[in-house]
Amino acid sequence: MKLKDGERIDELHRNGYKLIQNPAEFCFGIDAVILSGFARVKRGECVLDLGTGTGVIPILLEAKTQGAHFTGLEIQPQMVDMARRSVALNGLEEKVTIIEGDIKKAKELFAGRFQVVTSNPPYMNQGGGLINPDDNKAIARHEVKCTLEDVIKAAQIALKQHGRFYMVHRPHRLTDIFVLFRQHGLEPKCLQMVHPHENKPPTMVLVEAVKGGRPLLKTEPPLVVYKSEGGYTDEILRIYND
Amino acid sequence: MKLKDGERIDELHRNGYKLIQNPAEFCFGIDAVILSGFARVKRGECVLDLGTGTGVIPILLEAKTQGAHFTGLEIQPQMVDMARRSVALNGLEEKVTIIEGDIKKAKELFAGRFQVVTSNPPYMNQGGGLINPDDNKAIARHEVKCTLEDVIKAAQIALKQHGRFYMVHRPHRLTDIFVLFRQHGLEPKCLQMVHPHENKPPTMVLVEAVKGGRPLLKTEPPLVVYKSEGGYTDEILRIYND
Repeated sequence: MKLKDGERIDELHRNGYKLIQNPAEFCFGIDAVILSGFARVKRGECVLDLGTGTGVIPILLEAKTQGAHFTGLEIQPQMVDMARRSVALNGLEEKVTIIEGDIKKAKELFAGRFQVVTSNPPYMNQGGGLINPDDNKAIARHEVKCTLEDVIKAAQIALKQHGRFYMVHRPHRLTDIFVLFRQHGLEPKCLQMVHPHENKPPTMVLVEAVKGGRPLLKTEPPLVVYKSEGGYTDEILRIYND
Repeated sequence: MKLKDGERIDELHRNGYKLIQNPAEFCFGIDAVILSGFARVKRGECVLDLGTGTGVIPILLEAKTQGAHFTGLEIQPQMVDMARRSVALNGLEEKVTIIEGDIKKAKELFAGRFQVVTSNPPYMNQGGGLINPDDNKAIARHEVKCTLEDVIKAAQIALKQHGRFYMVHRPHRLTDIFVLFRQHGLEPKCLQMVHPHENKPPTMVLVEAVKGGRPLLKTEPPLVVYKSEGGYTDEILRIYND
């Protein structure tokens, strides 16, 4: 496996899988790992990950679940190339497909094809003129190429009726998330707050929404990342190693 | 102070205040106490409590804050009578006013008059034909006389621009709450989940919304009610005794 300038191979600690990343551009975070633990994928289901970046979420879900097939959609060509080489590195060409494309084209690409959609989208609202729209890091973190609404619309389009959408995002956007989900026919069914430490405010939210679901939100106990004495909590270790 | 059949006088453990309640009808719960701890009332502000029941929230807020005046609106005549006698029992006639009326008439009663509105509304969606609409308990618990949307509309109408609405409700309605708040010009600004026990799902949500506020939600650390070894947590004891 030939690496390009600046790239490195990281262990995923799961089925011996590895992932190619370029630390100068974007490395996956605990967000992606936690989302892969939150998403329920049943045997035989097909999964789409919107804005897949390095492909970490489809590769982790392939390892963790009995899903039939995993598709990652990514707009940045160099990320698509890197994710495809990670798929090949793990011998997953039959199970994981990385597609280069724009989530705003979801209708032509995927309409009603998936039982499950996942996304770890850019968190930051578009920040006026401060962001370089060609910067890979900025594209992964800020709403440069797509807004939260674009992601939610794409999920709604790609899902079959009663299909499930799993998203990780920031708590300060929770009103936007719930309002846009409902506006686009995705009913929030499960919410979990992720807290870095017990008794601290959450820094992430995990939301499960069902296309055409009836209104009734279940809230999970908080997910705490670090123990007070340091190190990951048992729940996080379970997500990393399950 | 003459009590009516079935009534009793309970201690509020605050300024020596007492409250008349009828256990056969409806007694205030920890929800009202927690809401009175969550609501911020600044010196000189005027406060309206929607669906005040026994008047527990205005009476507690009078004890806890430097607000100028506290109004409770209640639709059930016998609850209004009971709440007024509690106000008199505590000598608060100058500070607390109980008004008999329908929150759906908020426009005529209160338009734009309050810096703060609070509500501990009925939690349950209207339950088809199962509920007796003349039952006092049912009126306090179910959306018989008013829906969640009625309460939110009334809060929006009663508040001055940038006034604050504090509500306690059930987590399973959080999507409805956020969607209706935004629809009616109340922007959720602060969210706190209330968990009976650590590591258990929440059973209440506290929400602060600002009329005309800009979108940015802050989430507080979870509020836990009971210690694992039994008894209230320190945070809850603080709310009861502050």
